[in-house]
Amino acid sequence: MRKIINQPNDFVDEMIDGILLAHPDKLKTPGDDKRVLVRADAPTGKVGIVTGGGSGHLPLFKGYVGKGLCSGVAVGNVFSSPSAQQCFEAAKAVDGGAGVLFLYGNYGGDVFNFDLAIDLAELEGIETRTALGRDDVASQPNERKLDRRGVAGIFFAFKGAGAAAERGDGLEAVAAVAEDIIEHTATMGIGLSPTILPTTGKASFDLPEGEMEIGIGIHGETGIHRGPLETADQIVERLMAPLVADLVLVRGDRIAVLVNGMGATPLEELYVMYRHVHQQAALIGVTIEKSYIGEYATSLEMAGASLSILKLNDERLELLKAPADSPFFVEV
Amino acid sequence: MRKIINQPNDFVDEMIDGILLAHPDKLKTPGDDKRVLVRADAPTGKVGIVTGGGSGHLPLFKGYVGKGLCSGVAVGNVFSSPSAQQCFEAAKAVDGGAGVLFLYGNYGGDVFNFDLAIDLAELEGIETRTALGRDDVASQPNERKLDRRGVAGIFFAFKGAGAAAERGDGLEAVAAVAEDIIEHTATMGIGLSPTILPTTGKASFDLPEGEMEIGIGIHGETGIHRGPLETADQIVERLMAPLVADLVLVRGDRIAVLVNGMGATPLEELYVMYRHVHQQAALIGVTIEKSYIGEYATSLEMAGASLSILKLNDERLELLKAPADSPFFVEV
Repeated sequence: MRKIINQPNDFVDEMIDGILLAHPDKLKTPGDDKRVLVRADAPTGKVGIVTGGGSGHLPLFKGYVGKGLCSGVAVGNVFSSPSAQQCFEAAKAVDGGAGVLFLYGNYGGDVFNFDLAIDLAELEGIETRTALGRDDVASQPNERKLDRRGVAGIFFAFKGAGAAAERGDGLEAVAAVAEDIIEHTATMGIGLSPTILPTTGKASFDLPEGEMEIGIGIHGETGIHRGPLETADQIVERLMAPLVADLVLVRGDRIAVLVNGMGATPLEELYVMYRHVHQQAALIGVTIEKSYIGEYATSLEMAGASLSILKLNDERLELLKAPADSPFFVEV
Repeated sequence: MRKIINQPNDFVDEMIDGILLAHPDKLKTPGDDKRVLVRADAPTGKVGIVTGGGSGHLPLFKGYVGKGLCSGVAVGNVFSSPSAQQCFEAAKAVDGGAGVLFLYGNYGGDVFNFDLAIDLAELEGIETRTALGRDDVASQPNERKLDRRGVAGIFFAFKGAGAAAERGDGLEAVAAVAEDIIEHTATMGIGLSPTILPTTGKASFDLPEGEMEIGIGIHGETGIHRGPLETADQIVERLMAPLVADLVLVRGDRIAVLVNGMGATPLEELYVMYRHVHQQAALIGVTIEKSYIGEYATSLEMAGASLSILKLNDERLELLKAPADSPFFVEV
């Protein structure tokens, strides 16, 4: 392994220690379990948003806890769900009387534990709603889109639902914003090399040198095409065409774009990709109103990238433009 | 190669195209040469700050052009200096009548070309000063510190000098701020694997799997120790001890810390490192007043990290805390 770590079993907790030591003004642990983090300045009277999932995806999930984003987070081991108790603890800590939205990616273990947390929250009289990120178009065809996995595109839902909660929307309305954004978000990924899991020393997937896998998931889930590595422009076209089809983008549409690095892919390459995304959008008469380029949802040191598109209307664009402030994402 | 690029020779220009397409509200090309970028909203009457150097280090250098940071930048090919003409073009574009500070890393090619640019600027009646980032303590011993290379710690000088220019300091004062910060900044790096240069397909350095190189430069320059990979805590101690000695940190001192990822090292590992930096600082009675953790100066997809420390006084801390806004760095 080529990792800067101590004991592999301490990796997640030591990483959280680092986050808490670096950002005491922004994040805190509400109880004794440091895998549950909340905004240091969580306002009362507003809807709380709790996210969570496996570790190893920074800035997902802990990076999106802050003003105008999520209110709390529960994380598990690398690529493993947090427990129901942890999800519940996060909800209890951020509930300011207006209820809590659980907003996370559609993975079996996460759904199982967050659903148990709903029961625990109800016993405490905390009203909850759930919205599942399910933007990975390679994971299921359009007719089964409710079964899709959630990947980097959940960032748009954090941003929009967080802005809605911050302006004082009620629980139903914040949940509806999250659902609306999820409904209009689609993502495709490409993998060039796997990550090595710290505790097992095993690769997250196998891929011969010089090959690429289109449609790969952020834990190395199998994609829809494997073949020799192509040029950046060819890759962008392979990623973008299914998104345009899935979102039924037509001339005159407006979109937001996220070109996301998976961990080991240089920012330079993401900008080379963005250049062609912009060219392709212009070709079909679609306007990019907002772009995000960088690492938003990673898979430790995996080499690869993903392209997410959110189809915009005035409301969605306004929510994206609203202020936000977390240790990892700032919108001024 | 495992890169998302088109023709290797087009890599730099296509990356810049992507940056300009993504951030038209923040960055622009003043002339026909897109390797020269300036703030879209550069104010007149204030001191201009021009940086530059080789490509392949994003967000260094182009990422630090914006409000409260640098005013303009000239970049060359991957790991290659910009031309004198490009450095001059940047200076001419950002000169608002108050003169221009050239602020860049201490490398032979860059010094040669920026020095020629000074002559060109003088012919145009533009007053200039120069400050060289030279924070890499592994590159020269303390008694030859003026010969040290510049690495990630130059970020502190961008931030401080940029804030000084923004508040209206004159050219001498802005240059003095940059020199003062450089004088109190020290950096040590660790490399775990090289980057592959796009045009040649060659590795930037050789390192057997499972080994680490302490003191490595951001282009793969030889360090001061090579051996089997150690734990994160051991690595932090190896990086931090020379910095504490070089800056003569003693109980009661205040510092700012930058834990910088070189490209392929996950953010999680940087936080594991930061945790121990914080512990070690506490042990010697030194307080971390400001911390930066993430990718600030990379070497494409090199695996590794660096630790930079800036010894603070009230003035330096105030300059760090001043607002800044570029596509890659925001301080609110």
